[in-house]
Amino acid sequence: MASTTPEALEAEIAQQTAIFNELRLNPEKAETLGSLDDVKKSLGDLKKRLALAKNAGKEKKPKDKDGAQAQAQDATKKERLMLKTAKGTRDYSPAEMFCREHVERIVKDVFTSFGGSCLDTPVFERKDVLTDKYGEDSKLIFDLKDQGGEELALRYDHTVPLARYLAMQGGNNTHSKLWQIGKVYRRDNPVMSKGRMREFSQADFDISGVWDPMVPDAEILSLICTILSKLDVGEFTIKLNNRKILDGIFEVCGVPAEKIRAISSAVDKLDKSPWSEVKREMTEDKGLDPAVADKIGEYVKHKGGPELLEKLLADSTLTANQSAKEGLGEMEILFRLLKVYQVVDKISFDLSLARGLDYYTGIIYEAIVAASAPPGFNSANAFAAAPTTEPAQAPTSKPKSAPKKLGDEEPEVDESQVGVGSIAAGGRYDHLVSAFLAGAAGVKLGSKEAKKIPSIPCVGISIGLDRIFALVWPKWVERGARAKETMVYVMSAGDGLLDERIGLVRDLRAAGVKADFLAKNKPKLAAQFAAGEKDEVPFAVILGGDELRQGLVTVKEQRWELVDGKKAKIESTDKGTQVKRSELVEWLKKTPTWQEWVSQKWS
Amino acid sequence: MASTTPEALEAEIAQQTAIFNELRLNPEKAETLGSLDDVKKSLGDLKKRLALAKNAGKEKKPKDKDGAQAQAQDATKKERLMLKTAKGTRDYSPAEMFCREHVERIVKDVFTSFGGSCLDTPVFERKDVLTDKYGEDSKLIFDLKDQGGEELALRYDHTVPLARYLAMQGGNNTHSKLWQIGKVYRRDNPVMSKGRMREFSQADFDISGVWDPMVPDAEILSLICTILSKLDVGEFTIKLNNRKILDGIFEVCGVPAEKIRAISSAVDKLDKSPWSEVKREMTEDKGLDPAVADKIGEYVKHKGGPELLEKLLADSTLTANQSAKEGLGEMEILFRLLKVYQVVDKISFDLSLARGLDYYTGIIYEAIVAASAPPGFNSANAFAAAPTTEPAQAPTSKPKSAPKKLGDEEPEVDESQVGVGSIAAGGRYDHLVSAFLAGAAGVKLGSKEAKKIPSIPCVGISIGLDRIFALVWPKWVERGARAKETMVYVMSAGDGLLDERIGLVRDLRAAGVKADFLAKNKPKLAAQFAAGEKDEVPFAVILGGDELRQGLVTVKEQRWELVDGKKAKIESTDKGTQVKRSELVEWLKKTPTWQEWVSQKWS
Repeated sequence: MASTTPEALEAEIAQQTAIFNELRLNPEKAETLGSLDDVKKSLGDLKKRLALAKNAGKEKKPKDKDGAQAQAQDATKKERLMLKTAKGTRDYSPAEMFCREHVERIVKDVFTSFGGSCLDTPVFERKDVLTDKYGEDSKLIFDLKDQGGEELALRYDHTVPLARYLAMQGGNNTHSKLWQIGKVYRRDNPVMSKGRMREFSQADFDISGVWDPMVPDAEILSLICTILSKLDVGEFTIKLNNRKILDGIFEVCGVPAEKIRAISSAVDKLDKSPWSEVKREMTEDKGLDPAVADKIGEYVKHKGGPELLEKLLADSTLTANQSAKEGLGEMEILFRLLKVYQVVDKISFDLSLARGLDYYTGIIYEAIVAASAPPGFNSANAFAAAPTTEPAQAPTSKPKSAPKKLGDEEPEVDESQVGVGSIAAGGRYDHLVSAFLAGAAGVKLGSKEAKKIPSIPCVGISIGLDRIFALVWPKWVERGARAKETMVYVMSAGDGLLDERIGLVRDLRAAGVKADFLAKNKPKLAAQFAAGEKDEVPFAVILGGDELRQGLVTVKEQRWELVDGKKAKIESTDKGTQVKRSELVEWLKKTPTWQEWVSQKWS
Repeated sequence: MASTTPEALEAEIAQQTAIFNELRLNPEKAETLGSLDDVKKSLGDLKKRLALAKNAGKEKKPKDKDGAQAQAQDATKKERLMLKTAKGTRDYSPAEMFCREHVERIVKDVFTSFGGSCLDTPVFERKDVLTDKYGEDSKLIFDLKDQGGEELALRYDHTVPLARYLAMQGGNNTHSKLWQIGKVYRRDNPVMSKGRMREFSQADFDISGVWDPMVPDAEILSLICTILSKLDVGEFTIKLNNRKILDGIFEVCGVPAEKIRAISSAVDKLDKSPWSEVKREMTEDKGLDPAVADKIGEYVKHKGGPELLEKLLADSTLTANQSAKEGLGEMEILFRLLKVYQVVDKISFDLSLARGLDYYTGIIYEAIVAASAPPGFNSANAFAAAPTTEPAQAPTSKPKSAPKKLGDEEPEVDESQVGVGSIAAGGRYDHLVSAFLAGAAGVKLGSKEAKKIPSIPCVGISIGLDRIFALVWPKWVERGARAKETMVYVMSAGDGLLDERIGLVRDLRAAGVKADFLAKNKPKLAAQFAAGEKDEVPFAVILGGDELRQGLVTVKEQRWELVDGKKAKIESTDKGTQVKRSELVEWLKKTPTWQEWVSQKWS
C-alpha cells in the first residue's frame, strides 16, 4: 500500500535516502538493495508525492490554525536538520575501521623497518606556508574563516608541512627518514566509492639530506614495493620516469622553454586519454607545432625496463642534451640498485609519466594496480587507436549525462567510469625546503642573495590509504572478517549474578584477556549468547551459582563459517568444559583457538 | 662581540626566537638554555638594535639605488615568510611521537579490552550539527571559510559527532561501545607547555543504549582507572558527582529555576577559585541571595567516599527532593558496582564538581593528578581561607602582568601559574542523540510531536592525550628513552660494499628485522658507527670483503646508559662475533638483547 500522509512519505524518503547513501559507498550492494538508478527514481517519485500531499494538507487544514501558527510550522520544517557528513567526507564504521587499522598497521611496520621515525604536524597551517606550492590546484585548498588572528588553511598534503618542519630545524637534522600518517584536504569533486574524497588519509615516507646518488630513491621504491606486496591489493606496477629526461625530450623535440610545463601537464594525461586527444590539447589548446607534437609522441609512447634505458642511451640526439644525459645517468645507477633490492620486475620505466606537481626535480613514480584503472580504458592501448580514429568508449572527464541535482547532493559523477587511480605516488623534490629557508630569509631562491641557503634535497612517497581501503574492503566483506577483538563473553546461566560476572570480567581484563558481558541485572542466557555471537567472540564463559561455589566455570568455544556470504555459527554438541575459575586465564591461553587469534589470523 | 649589521642581527634574532619557542614548549630546559625572561629581554634588545641598524643603512645607502629599488626591497622584507606553525598548534618531533604512540597504544589496548570498536568521523562537520551544543563556548568553534557549498566547522569534541553518527544509524546499532582517537579544535587561549592547545588529541570511549542502571557508568569509571594506572602519570583521583543531586541541592537551597545553570557554572569554578570568590560571583554577578549562597556552600564543600553518600541519604531535606533522591539512588548502585570493579579508592565523591557542558544529565566525573593542579592552589583548601580572607597566592584567570606583545606571538599567559587541569572528563548525556533525531524530524525534543523519537542514552569519557603527554614526556626525557625501533645497522669495514650492504638490509627487513645503513657509496666505518649510535641501534653488523666470501659477517652488540642526563654508549672491548650470514636472523633473534627489545622494554 502506497503511503499518503506527509509523515509516512517523509519516513519513506528518509529510508530511501539511507539506502541511496549506502549504495553510493558500496555499489556492490546493488544486488540486495537494488540499483542506484532505481533508488534515485523512487526518491524522486516520493518527493513529488510529498509536495502534493503537503499542498493537499494546506488546503484542508487552513481553518485548524491561524496564519501565525501555520507560518511557525513552516519555519520549523525549514530548520529541519540534515543528518549527514559534509560533502566528500564520510564516517568509517567499526567494521571498516578494523580493516583500516589493519592496513595502517602494515604500513607503519614497514615504515619503521626502513628506519623511519614518526612526525606529526598540525591539520591546518598558516596560509602563506601553502601558497605557491601547488600550481593551479591551489584553488582546491580549504581555507579557514577569518575569525581574527592568522590566515589559516587545511593542509593539502604532508609534503609541504614536512618541508616547513625541516626548514624550521634550520641546519640541524637535515638527514632524516620521516613518516607521517594523517588526513589531508582538497575541495575536489568526490567519487566516494573509489576512495576519492575531500578528506582523505595519506601515509607519507620521506628521506631528506645529501646522500650518494639514487640510494634514497631506491630505498623509497623498495619501501613501496614491500608495502604493496603485503597489502591485499593484487598485482601492482610502479610507473617510473625522470623529470630531467622528460625535460630533455621536450628540449630535443623543440618545445619552446616557456611551454615545457604546459606540455608536460598534457603528457601527464596519457593515463586517462588517448594520444590523439593529448596531441589535440598540445596543438590546438597550447599552440604547439604539430610536427613537434609528433616527435614527442614518438618518445613518450615508450615503456619498459632496463632495455628501454639502453635504447635511450644509444640515442645520440637525446644524450647530447645536458638534462636528458643527467637523467639517463641517474636511471642507470637506479636500475643497478633496484636489481639489488630485487624489485626491477615491478618497475615500468614509462616516458609518458609526468606527474602534476611543479616541485619535482628528479625521478617521479606512481603505483597502480589492475583494479585501479577506469573500465574500458587500457593505457597500454593509448597509442593503438591514434592518431586517426577516436575510440568510442574512451571516457572523458565529463560525465555522460549532464549533472543533475538530487536534493542538495553533489552533482553526479558516473562512478562506474572512474578508476581508483594511482594508489601511491611521489618523487624527488630538491628545492622545496630551500624555498622555505629562502622565503624566511626574505630572498629569492636562485638569486645571488640565496647562495648561502643550505640545500636539503628530499625524495618521498604518499600512499593513498582511502584508495587502498576501497580495494581491500570488498575482499574483507567477502571473507566475512571479524570487526572486534573481544575474546571472552561472560554470561550467567541462572540468577543474574551481575557482581560475579563483573568480577570475572575485571579479572580477565586485568590479565590481558579482552572480555565483555551484557550490562543487565538478570539477562536471559539466550540474550547473552546472542550478544556474544554478534561480536563473534570465540569463548563463552558461563557462570552458575552452584558451580561458582565450587570455584568452577563452564567454557564453550564458538566457531563461525561463511554460509552464502553470511557468517553463521557452527552449532556444536559441545556442552562446554568445566574449568577452575582460578585457572581460567591459563586454560584459555593454552587453547588452539587462542593461539590462532593472537597470531593475528583475524587480521 | 656584538653584531652590528642587519643581516647578523637577523640571524641572531632567528636563533633567539628558536630558543624562545623551545623554552615555551620545554620550560625545564631553562637550566641549559637560560630563563624565558632573559631570552625575551635579549630578543627585545636585538629587535631595537635591528631597527636602528636598518635606519642607519637607509641613511647611508640612498645613493646606491633609486627609489623604486629601495621600495622593492622593502616589499621583499615585508613578504618575509614566518616559519612557524599556527597559534596554539605544534609539530611533534620523532622522539615526542615515539612517546605519544606509546601512550596511544596503551589507551587503545584498554579500549579494546573493554569491548570497544573504533569509529572515525570527519575532522569537519556541517556547521548546524555543532550549533547549540556547547553553550557559551560555541564562540570557540573554528569555522571554515565559505568557498561555496555547505557551511562547515572543525569538530569541537568527539561527543557531538558520535551522537550525530548514532542518530544517522536511526533505530539500528543503538547498543554500542565505540572509541575514537583524533584531533579536535578550540579557538581558546593556548598554554602550550601544559598541553592546552587549539589543536589537541582526545581519546573518547562511549557506551550507548538502554542498559540496567549504572552498569555502563561503572564500566566507564573502571576503564579510566585502568588506563591511568597503566600510564606513567602518578597518583590520580576521579572526582565524581551527579547532576541530579546537584540540581536537587540547588532546589533545596532555594535557587530560582532559571538561575540553576548559571549557579552550577559558578560552582564549577571551585577547583580554581576559593569559595569566597565563587560566592561573590553568585551574589554580585548573578544576583543570588547571600543566605542561599551560604546554604549551597555548606553542601558543596563536602567530598569523600561512600560514607558521604550515607550522610546525604540521612539528610531528609535533601531526600525529600525528587531529583536529589533519584541521583542518590543512582550513586548507591554505582558505589556497589565500583566496589566490585575494585576502584572505590580512586573515587572522590565531590559535590563541588559541576562540569561546564549543558548536555550532561546524570553522573559527571573528572580525572586529576597531583601534578595537574596549578601551583600555590590546593583545592582541598578552597574553603579553608573562606569566607573572610582572600589567600594572597590564589591565581586568578588573569595573568599577573598585563599582556604584552612579542612580535606576532600570542598575548602571554604566566604559564607557571597554570596547571595541566583535568586529564580526562565526561559524564552521562541521555538526550543528545534524541536531539539530533528530533532535529532531523523537524520537531522539538520534549514536545508532543517528539514522543515517537527513540531514546538513545549515552555515557562516555574524553581523555586529553596532549595533557597526558605533557605529564609523561619529561619522565621519558629523564629516562633517556629511545626514539627509534631500528634493531640492526649494517656497515662495511672496507671498500664501500654498497650493493652487499643493501642486499643484507633487504634480507633482514624481509625477515622482519628492522634494519638500516648509511646511504653512501664508500662511507668511513666511524661515520657508519656514528649514524647507528645516533639511533641507539642495539646491533652493528659489519661486512668485510674477505669475510663475506666465506659467508661470514661480524656482529657487535651495543648498549647505552644515562650519564649526567645524557645517553652514552658503554664502550666494550668486545671485538664482535663472527656469524654465518645465512644464520644471522636466527642468531639475532636468540640474543638476550633482542628478547629485551621485543618484549617492549624500550616502551
